[in-house]
Amino acid sequence: MIFKTPTHYFLVAGASEGFTPLNAFDGALLQAGIGDTNLVKMSSIVPPRCIRIDPIRIPPGSLVPTAYASITCDIPGEMISSAVAVALPEDPVHAGLIMEYSARGNRRDVEEMVRNMTLEGMKLRGRKIKDLSSIAIEHQVKKIAATFAAVVLWD
Amino acid sequence: MIFKTPTHYFLVAGASEGFTPLNAFDGALLQAGIGDTNLVKMSSIVPPRCIRIDPIRIPPGSLVPTAYASITCDIPGEMISSAVAVALPEDPVHAGLIMEYSARGNRRDVEEMVRNMTLEGMKLRGRKIKDLSSIAIEHQVKKIAATFAAVVLWD
Amino acid sequence: MIFKTPTHYFLVAGASEGFTPLNAFDGALLQAGIGDTNLVKMSSIVPPRCIRIDPIRIPPGSLVPTAYASITCDIPGEMISSAVAVALPEDPVHAGLIMEYSARGNRRDVEEMVRNMTLEGMKLRGRKIKDLSSIAIEHQVKKIAATFAAVVLWD
Repeated sequence: MIFKTPTHYFLVAGASEGFTPLNAFDGALLQAGIGDTNLVKMSSIVPPRCIRIDPIRIPPGSLVPTAYASITCDIPGEMISSAVAVALPEDPVHAGLIMEYSARGNRRDVEEMVRNMTLEGMKLRGRKIKDLSSIAIEHQVKKIAATFAAVVLWD
Repeated sequence: MIFKTPTHYFLVAGASEGFTPLNAFDGALLQAGIGDTNLVKMSSIVPPRCIRIDPIRIPPGSLVPTAYASITCDIPGEMISSAVAVALPEDPVHAGLIMEYSARGNRRDVEEMVRNMTLEGMKLRGRKIKDLSSIAIEHQVKKIAATFAAVVLWD
Repeated sequence: MIFKTPTHYFLVAGASEGFTPLNAFDGALLQAGIGDTNLVKMSSIVPPRCIRIDPIRIPPGSLVPTAYASITCDIPGEMISSAVAVALPEDPVHAGLIMEYSARGNRRDVEEMVRNMTLEGMKLRGRKIKDLSSIAIEHQVKKIAATFAAVVLWD
């Protein structure tokens, strides 16, 4: 194994305006409470027996494996949303599934979509779901903005 | 060194329809046999003396450094393909090179392209090639589909 | 912690023509001196007390956490540029910030932009800046080209 397998995870979300799209993304990470960490994007599995915790303060500069959705937009007045969902299986020897979704639109629609995506992914695996959780955020663009929702994996 | 350097690698490919593009991508990973792992995308080198193995079952939830090509498409009837190629050098102290390519089109054309890309990359390095291998997959879109081809690095 | 936290970093940049956009990207990495490594893209923090060094030769095939900007272009005559900037805080218990920016345009404009992005990000954090450094590169496209600028984190 090249990397350690995560044992804990938590959900966060944030939104921000910014000087550029990347600054807005950076602001959204700060608002989500993980703005001073180094996100390493990954696709999108909760290891078996990985435990959900409340968001913790990650040491600054840490490299953090994260499954996330993000969108930036520079059209004033537009609504943007990001959401992630986590489905855990009934049988704890199996992995859970994370899905990510961002779109123009409101939080309710985007969160419903990402939950349905996760249900479909578990159905494809033939796994019954014990727990389905999600987090979502919406933001109406003033000038340049980003939304961000993530499952952060940790040890 | 922040991460361990991989010592083994294998090639996989898959294709799938899905409820959304991300679900199709997830299905393609499952078909490729690495659907319950956390891919960490990387650019695209085989470490010196890294050994090719047959695909193994990665423990679920593992973080896996992977060089991959993927494409999604929602135009019914369209053919999509993904391919990766690996060139190993004659001199085993040197690194090998991975290239990735996806496009609308058939498997033969996409695989030929990615093999040529790898030849060009080795020529740029002035390295003679001992072995050139590749894997490719094509899929004709029904509704929403993805193809995926990867070199998975492992320990 | 899943991954070790980096303790050193350095800045590099490169540009290249190539047989395809990915070959041009590969050539730009080679010109930057990190062409035989496996870049793992991350967002974009310098850990507290992380020390800048001159570029070193990374062992071939290593997995390397890197914050980078890159752009490819196939319009002959076009100028493309990539730049990264690093702002370090006055108070060494805090993290530093990396920003990345690529665009069509010349090096001077793109480097000025990325430096301003970094200033904005530190302002958002309420942190005074002790040092602001950057690296940038421009290239006039002949056929198919890429520019690349990066902050490489290391141990």
